[in-house]
Amino acid sequence: MLDGKLIDSALHMAPLERSVGEIGGRLPLTTAEIVAIEKRLVADNKLTDGVVYLQYTRGAEDRNFFYSDDLQPTLLLFTQVKTLEHVAAVDTGLKVKLMPDQRWARRDIKSVGLLPQVLAKRDAKAAGFDEAWMVEDGLITEGASSTAYIVTHDDRIITRGNGNATLPGCTRLAVLELAREQGLTIEERPFTVEEGKAAREACLTSASNFIVPITNIDGAPVGDGKPGPMFNRLRVLYMENARRTAI
Amino acid sequence: MLDGKLIDSALHMAPLERSVGEIGGRLPLTTAEIVAIEKRLVADNKLTDGVVYLQYTRGAEDRNFFYSDDLQPTLLLFTQVKTLEHVAAVDTGLKVKLMPDQRWARRDIKSVGLLPQVLAKRDAKAAGFDEAWMVEDGLITEGASSTAYIVTHDDRIITRGNGNATLPGCTRLAVLELAREQGLTIEERPFTVEEGKAAREACLTSASNFIVPITNIDGAPVGDGKPGPMFNRLRVLYMENARRTAI
Repeated sequence: MLDGKLIDSALHMAPLERSVGEIGGRLPLTTAEIVAIEKRLVADNKLTDGVVYLQYTRGAEDRNFFYSDDLQPTLLLFTQVKTLEHVAAVDTGLKVKLMPDQRWARRDIKSVGLLPQVLAKRDAKAAGFDEAWMVEDGLITEGASSTAYIVTHDDRIITRGNGNATLPGCTRLAVLELAREQGLTIEERPFTVEEGKAAREACLTSASNFIVPITNIDGAPVGDGKPGPMFNRLRVLYMENARRTAI
Repeated sequence: MLDGKLIDSALHMAPLERSVGEIGGRLPLTTAEIVAIEKRLVADNKLTDGVVYLQYTRGAEDRNFFYSDDLQPTLLLFTQVKTLEHVAAVDTGLKVKLMPDQRWARRDIKSVGLLPQVLAKRDAKAAGFDEAWMVEDGLITEGASSTAYIVTHDDRIITRGNGNATLPGCTRLAVLELAREQGLTIEERPFTVEEGKAAREACLTSASNFIVPITNIDGAPVGDGKPGPMFNRLRVLYMENARRTAI
């Protein structure tokens, strides 16, 4: 949400439909109807900058692992006021701590089972960092609540491809498409901890942070320790597009 | 709960305290105070056979991965009527389907992040089975909502030892202690899918099923396909002890 408008709205509906499908659920409303409710919530709450949160459940059922097939699904939505664009991190950069990725095998399903991410971010914060980068088999999967990117000294943007190991980010999708339109070189592949530490730049994207630079990985500065030119270029591209396509 | 009394009450308080500690929380009441609330709920609801459910949270907070340290923790408790002792499965046995263990790395922490287990049980049920046995690296970890046991043809009881790979079952603890008192041979170690299929008997334990025989693993009968003598012996031991120590 920026200026009272929804950002990347269509991009957010696709993974909602996908996650609901992956757990065998069904949305009780069309995505157009859901977007209409989001707009009404934004208006009713007089929200300008912030987020709309949406949670789906299969429906109310007695506490059991099994559930009946004829439940009436529920949707819960609320808004939160939040500064998204003019945050200090854009100028100063964030520090990420490397942590073991302890999550389950289907991270592509977005669910409220977020305890591993919450614990990783808690430990990162306790150690003086802003975010955790999750590591599995020597490779960065993603941030605890964000997509991870590095930029090499020869201007290649590297971020892990979508799959079961990561949550397919909506802001990620928008940024990569914009970067491709500009002819920038993108490598969608896992990158190692060593590549991360040797990068010239690093950044993250998420729906509630847009795109923010990372200037420190596990205590070591990234490049010269300042937000770099590729980040600035991507941010301008993203913010312009977000405003232009907001609804 | 049996006959209006709590079963294995002390055994259930220990993992609650442990899980809360592992996520850096703190119980707002002593375990004695919690047990007193459980007893009152049982009385107020005139419950004879069923379960008391308890859920802890760090407290109410704005939706965010980070949380403040001074939240007031919450406990939510309710009761459910359920037949626990005289269930048909005790005579007929259950069928378990082998499924990949997709859970996170800290299964020893009991949390509401149960989507992997719910999906495994859904798929098992859809295929005509009663429970899923989760398999990792060729080894059974445990059932989706129960502890897994096999009994060899020379009367050894095999069940995985506690660790990060499994939830430390309360009923498991009670059954193993009773079996040891009887001088039975127990091997606390992971067992393979092949060992499972070659076993003479198999069974499961859980707080809401006590101890139930498994007579079919992934479509193949266990032993002669009927509940065996070791299961019957353990069940008698467990039920006698449960009643004797109920509060």
